[in-house]
Amino acid sequence: MTAPNLDVFERRESAVRSYIRSFPEIFTTAKGHLIHGESGRAYIDFFAGAGALNYGHNDDAMKAALMEYVAGDGIAHALDMGTGAKARFLERFHEVILSPRGLEHKVLFPGPTGTNAVEAALKLARKVTGREKIVSFTNAFHGMTLGSLAVTGNGFKRGGAGLPLDNTVFMPFADFLDEGFDSLSYLERMLEDGGSGMDLPAGVIVETVQGEGGINAASFGWLKRLNDLCARWNLPLIVDDIQAGCGRTGPFFSFEPAGIKPDIICLSKSISGYGLPMALVLVRPDMDLFGPGEHNGTFRGNSMAFVTATEALRFWTDDSLTRDVERRGQIIEDALTAMAEKHPELQPDVRGRGLMRGIGLGVAGAAEAVCAEAFKGGVIMETSGPDSEVAKLLPPLTIPDEALREGLDVMARAVDTVAARIASEKPAAA
Amino acid sequence: MTAPNLDVFERRESAVRSYIRSFPEIFTTAKGHLIHGESGRAYIDFFAGAGALNYGHNDDAMKAALMEYVAGDGIAHALDMGTGAKARFLERFHEVILSPRGLEHKVLFPGPTGTNAVEAALKLARKVTGREKIVSFTNAFHGMTLGSLAVTGNGFKRGGAGLPLDNTVFMPFADFLDEGFDSLSYLERMLEDGGSGMDLPAGVIVETVQGEGGINAASFGWLKRLNDLCARWNLPLIVDDIQAGCGRTGPFFSFEPAGIKPDIICLSKSISGYGLPMALVLVRPDMDLFGPGEHNGTFRGNSMAFVTATEALRFWTDDSLTRDVERRGQIIEDALTAMAEKHPELQPDVRGRGLMRGIGLGVAGAAEAVCAEAFKGGVIMETSGPDSEVAKLLPPLTIPDEALREGLDVMARAVDTVAARIASEKPAAA
Amino acid sequence: MTAPNLDVFERRESAVRSYIRSFPEIFTTAKGHLIHGESGRAYIDFFAGAGALNYGHNDDAMKAALMEYVAGDGIAHALDMGTGAKARFLERFHEVILSPRGLEHKVLFPGPTGTNAVEAALKLARKVTGREKIVSFTNAFHGMTLGSLAVTGNGFKRGGAGLPLDNTVFMPFADFLDEGFDSLSYLERMLEDGGSGMDLPAGVIVETVQGEGGINAASFGWLKRLNDLCARWNLPLIVDDIQAGCGRTGPFFSFEPAGIKPDIICLSKSISGYGLPMALVLVRPDMDLFGPGEHNGTFRGNSMAFVTATEALRFWTDDSLTRDVERRGQIIEDALTAMAEKHPELQPDVRGRGLMRGIGLGVAGAAEAVCAEAFKGGVIMETSGPDSEVAKLLPPLTIPDEALREGLDVMARAVDTVAARIASEKPAAA
Amino acid sequence: MTAPNLDVFERRESAVRSYIRSFPEIFTTAKGHLIHGESGRAYIDFFAGAGALNYGHNDDAMKAALMEYVAGDGIAHALDMGTGAKARFLERFHEVILSPRGLEHKVLFPGPTGTNAVEAALKLARKVTGREKIVSFTNAFHGMTLGSLAVTGNGFKRGGAGLPLDNTVFMPFADFLDEGFDSLSYLERMLEDGGSGMDLPAGVIVETVQGEGGINAASFGWLKRLNDLCARWNLPLIVDDIQAGCGRTGPFFSFEPAGIKPDIICLSKSISGYGLPMALVLVRPDMDLFGPGEHNGTFRGNSMAFVTATEALRFWTDDSLTRDVERRGQIIEDALTAMAEKHPELQPDVRGRGLMRGIGLGVAGAAEAVCAEAFKGGVIMETSGPDSEVAKLLPPLTIPDEALREGLDVMARAVDTVAARIASEKPAAA
Repeated sequence: MTAPNLDVFERRESAVRSYIRSFPEIFTTAKGHLIHGESGRAYIDFFAGAGALNYGHNDDAMKAALMEYVAGDGIAHALDMGTGAKARFLERFHEVILSPRGLEHKVLFPGPTGTNAVEAALKLARKVTGREKIVSFTNAFHGMTLGSLAVTGNGFKRGGAGLPLDNTVFMPFADFLDEGFDSLSYLERMLEDGGSGMDLPAGVIVETVQGEGGINAASFGWLKRLNDLCARWNLPLIVDDIQAGCGRTGPFFSFEPAGIKPDIICLSKSISGYGLPMALVLVRPDMDLFGPGEHNGTFRGNSMAFVTATEALRFWTDDSLTRDVERRGQIIEDALTAMAEKHPELQPDVRGRGLMRGIGLGVAGAAEAVCAEAFKGGVIMETSGPDSEVAKLLPPLTIPDEALREGLDVMARAVDTVAARIASEKPAAA
Repeated sequence: MTAPNLDVFERRESAVRSYIRSFPEIFTTAKGHLIHGESGRAYIDFFAGAGALNYGHNDDAMKAALMEYVAGDGIAHALDMGTGAKARFLERFHEVILSPRGLEHKVLFPGPTGTNAVEAALKLARKVTGREKIVSFTNAFHGMTLGSLAVTGNGFKRGGAGLPLDNTVFMPFADFLDEGFDSLSYLERMLEDGGSGMDLPAGVIVETVQGEGGINAASFGWLKRLNDLCARWNLPLIVDDIQAGCGRTGPFFSFEPAGIKPDIICLSKSISGYGLPMALVLVRPDMDLFGPGEHNGTFRGNSMAFVTATEALRFWTDDSLTRDVERRGQIIEDALTAMAEKHPELQPDVRGRGLMRGIGLGVAGAAEAVCAEAFKGGVIMETSGPDSEVAKLLPPLTIPDEALREGLDVMARAVDTVAARIASEKPAAA
Repeated sequence: MTAPNLDVFERRESAVRSYIRSFPEIFTTAKGHLIHGESGRAYIDFFAGAGALNYGHNDDAMKAALMEYVAGDGIAHALDMGTGAKARFLERFHEVILSPRGLEHKVLFPGPTGTNAVEAALKLARKVTGREKIVSFTNAFHGMTLGSLAVTGNGFKRGGAGLPLDNTVFMPFADFLDEGFDSLSYLERMLEDGGSGMDLPAGVIVETVQGEGGINAASFGWLKRLNDLCARWNLPLIVDDIQAGCGRTGPFFSFEPAGIKPDIICLSKSISGYGLPMALVLVRPDMDLFGPGEHNGTFRGNSMAFVTATEALRFWTDDSLTRDVERRGQIIEDALTAMAEKHPELQPDVRGRGLMRGIGLGVAGAAEAVCAEAFKGGVIMETSGPDSEVAKLLPPLTIPDEALREGLDVMARAVDTVAARIASEKPAAA
Repeated sequence: MTAPNLDVFERRESAVRSYIRSFPEIFTTAKGHLIHGESGRAYIDFFAGAGALNYGHNDDAMKAALMEYVAGDGIAHALDMGTGAKARFLERFHEVILSPRGLEHKVLFPGPTGTNAVEAALKLARKVTGREKIVSFTNAFHGMTLGSLAVTGNGFKRGGAGLPLDNTVFMPFADFLDEGFDSLSYLERMLEDGGSGMDLPAGVIVETVQGEGGINAASFGWLKRLNDLCARWNLPLIVDDIQAGCGRTGPFFSFEPAGIKPDIICLSKSISGYGLPMALVLVRPDMDLFGPGEHNGTFRGNSMAFVTATEALRFWTDDSLTRDVERRGQIIEDALTAMAEKHPELQPDVRGRGLMRGIGLGVAGAAEAVCAEAFKGGVIMETSGPDSEVAKLLPPLTIPDEALREGLDVMARAVDTVAARIASEKPAAA
């Protein structure tokens, strides 16, 4: 195996590129849970397009539907005109997803990226309420455009705005603070007190499990209480289910076990199933108050994505995938727990839910080192958290158990290697 | 032909949908300059995906490349990892587009929508300069996310923000004001005067021809002077070439005849060639100052779009398409001029450049009526301008001259019909 | 005694007027702790110009100095030109106040109101750090102009801005939350976590005892920890000592017992001693970075105020006034405690420090009723707190003990009356 | 005469001090148009406290009223309680000023500085309209607190904010641009065009003659057209008459000859007559929508200022002062015109109205040099304009004609001196 030639990227692409630095390879083809490099090597994918490939790469049924559509000169790009591809998606999405869950939300198609969905949701909440401030949570990640970035916690990314980011109030997420501090009581206290400086907000935006923020899972009880608080204060509750939704944590919507029906729901990433750009905002009918074209976007009618998305819904006609996710999630949890128990010196902290998992490593740089070692061992995985302190696992939901275990073994060895290196670097006397 | 059943859209889709209201049809397939409805009817496309389909629908060569890529399980979604598809695009784009034009700009892949490109450009200009205000122009359109919306002129769309939109200074576009007023002298006067209230800006963003804003074309002289003014004041010049670029006005970049090299260039819409979501920001190397991941987006590595985009570059290996655009543009101009001369009572105003054309109609509602009539006659075209007062023509650049003339005939009859209706509605005494 | 004729105010003055509604009288003359109404009635002043009259009304020595200055045609208004009156104040202020406390702060004269001082302080902190956000605290009150209002907690007053108020992060003040929650640990946690959404601030502004916010006194330990936290993070600490300073809580600066030296200190209210408009910002020399005239104001050279302010400094040549304040503060505390013990049904809560005292009454409307009754009994006192739930006592620091006790007796009877009325209003069964 | 000892200011006062740098003297007493320095020297005052001393220094009748009030222990500081001093002012102000001019405006007492009045006016306009943006004009000056600074044009002063200043749209003032450009047509065009990016504003704020901005006088025709435009668009018109009002340009309100009745009027500076801090906002009754205390300020009841302000109204019981101002204004204009004609090489430009006059000198530094020379000659005068390019004359309205001429002679010699120096500095060949 020779080193891949990344020269063209260095010469031509902006310095903003990032994952290519973690995974120095030129990838060519992919199938299921495997990605193939130009070098011929196959990698187990524990990253899944940052959650955009929940059903693995190039699922055969979706591929067939896509090929058929393209071959038949199906209209590829249609703005928000009526198309057969979109009609079929709308019908099927209602039938398989919304209706069984008692949701009558309207489907808004923003531009086909997550941040577009979040921007539309925030604009709508502000328009509906006539208020400005949005409550967001520590370590939230909602996107890179100005509106979404303002509700994103990461300081490095916020710094890219070049502007003061405003109209957001950050509250401590579920377990951000130590036990004994109840973040929702604090939020409610701030709302109740007429002198708290917290202007009545236009809404609350939350991820049920924070992916970029460090795989922090809010309990269902906390989510239910947040939902009830929002209802009490008439604050639209926006669940950004872009990463945690589409089955990533088990059920289609990550919030289902909390027994709540958020006012506004953002979906993207895995909604198209095949990695094609697509995004949705689901809106409670009485909040569907944009006028025609008041929010739009050139690529909001990406027909190929509608075709694969419709096909992807086959996974949700029964609960088998949910049960798979739960089982595989347990496999990961067991493996991570074993790593943690073996290496307490790394200050490990096992986190997550379903197939959205991670292990925090308190030793600076350790999580990044583990991911780098794992890549050498043929596993693609990334860090998350404000200091890249969490080694994150987002395998395809459909990964065979055996491959999952194989990848976890690679990871376990990576942890061993990193632990040994760290131990050897310490001065003897310490 | 029976009326299409649009019921599912009414029941399930958000009220924000708009084009489906203008074009009540369910579209299924498309090829070249034609779109086919469920009813079996074929429509001449004078809209081209709002400029995203410059090469027409489902170009055979791009289709073949796409089919081959999908069939071979090419990696579909790759974030900003290195892929063969992206490497090929970068090489080819440099070879065909950048290098011959003496541009050494770095290629930044934002999320695959125009507004994502604009947001990245604005953030970068602010980061590079350490300043905040952006100069934009009356009737500019740059996108619907918060940063882009702030530099967009349209009041209805701005109202959707639910927030005061700030850090923008609007200046009169090229011919916004009457003759005798030089908008660039005014801008420079505001910059020069230390008491003008205009804080030194972080940059200037401009479209060479405003599409959504009413098909307003700035002269190349004006653009050159704007460029020189920016250079004099060290203001990064951002050209949003999302709609006017990719050959829409003739040359690949719409600003080429002005002899300028903007600091930052935004491309999207037709860059993928096939209507697939894709966007680029081209950045002067010394301004390529984002750190790794400081701006990102899940779908910034949409491989299928890279595949078709690479194929689409075949149109730019010589100047034949540019000459086609010029010739076809003249055909439109002649036809529109004839309509104008025939119907002075509609207060007509022929506008545009290349295949980005329009006719302003001063009588309220006339342009909308013309588009509605044209649709009945089998032509898809839309209005633009703040009061939807311009009937806009954005046919595929590749439309055969005959089809173009056929569509223009339909349009001419539509204008006649509307003119007759308006005349008949007037009281006899008036 | 006939009712005063307030007709001219109703006809001519804006509806924004407020205290005249609480104290329906036309006041004419005043001396020491007494104010005389047109009706001939004398009122004991427990309000002291909202803290602007710490030395009582029309102190004889200040009056003599003022009369002499006016009689001699001393220059009345001098912007920031050099004047004898200002030179004398600067020398004396350094000698009596700054030097003995080891403060080498520069004296900045903003416009002569508290909010002007706060605005100058905030601008300076932002200029010095190049950052934007200011940390303020729940129930803070810093003024009504836009910059000061943004760091003020009161929702009613914030609503008057007609704009989203931004660039402020509100943190829970000392004891805002229940025991067990340490507000400074929370603040530090937010600063430490790179994903908390808290951009590194430009400074922290705090009152040691919140006057308008409900007579909430931070402990000296809390203030010391806040000071140390600011030092650790290089955040300029601004103490707004406008109400709590000038001896109101005992020492000249309210923060002295905490053993801290804030970077920026705002003074106003009682600094002129005679109720004349005057304000100061004291600035650590290395932060004195405004250029000449970068902040200014027409009335920043109010010479008459400098004359009385210089004379007022006689109170600070020894610690006798501080000891008086402590003794009188204890008299109030004892009296309030007695009222509280007598009327637990009013849910009383005794608060404050020095001669900045109050009793919170948990029964809605009770505090306002007590003040209204007290006024009938010849005592002027007001409420504070977000729901006007605190009956506040701010007598002149120089009030004779006997008069203080007389006023407290009036107040005690007012509390009895209100308690009886509330009891009688309750349904028998309750 | 020995040089004054300014040491205490250098050691103790902030570097923000400015006028003391132009006028290195320690001033002690003043009377009428004369100010006396510690050195014994008397200076002719062509500055009049930046317009706060329209009736000269220490007017005998006001002084007597003030002395009597202080001697009688009149209440000095009363917040917005009812006082005899305030009642008398309100009655007399209505009788002498408002009623004869057909104004039924309510009188709002903000904190006693100009910027406080402007902040109150802006908040009110936003509250009344529910909108955010304010139209202000190039070279406007409205104050240094955050709200006022946002509508102030001067870049140096704006830079002191340390924040992006927003929610303001700057339009070219009356003659800011060359002939042939009509700034109000431009404003109306921006309002009319739904795509101009100009959100419907909350109001317009304007000075009739810009003082700090360079003595730029709008014509009455322009003001009338601005007024009518505001009426047409339902935009509250705020006239900041803080410097140009109180007779500075002739009539009490500077806008009277334009035949308009602004919705909101800000007064300060000379309203107290004696240089004491005082400010008013006059509000059209139907816009008087603040709730009690929604805007307030500790020193809004500065009784001594009410006493002198009431006495100062004696100047307005007939039109004699207005005629004096007109006559004296002509004397200045004639003198400035003579200087201009004598020194065309200084690129002179005579400006202003009434006793608000100036001469712009196009040669860099010339205006500052003229003021410095004038000071040496015993005249106090300052520059204005964004580049300090205007030598400004704001003598007391009551200055005897002879003294005025004497001062103008000093100034004329100063101009000669500066012109000679500049000529001598030029290289012979130039």
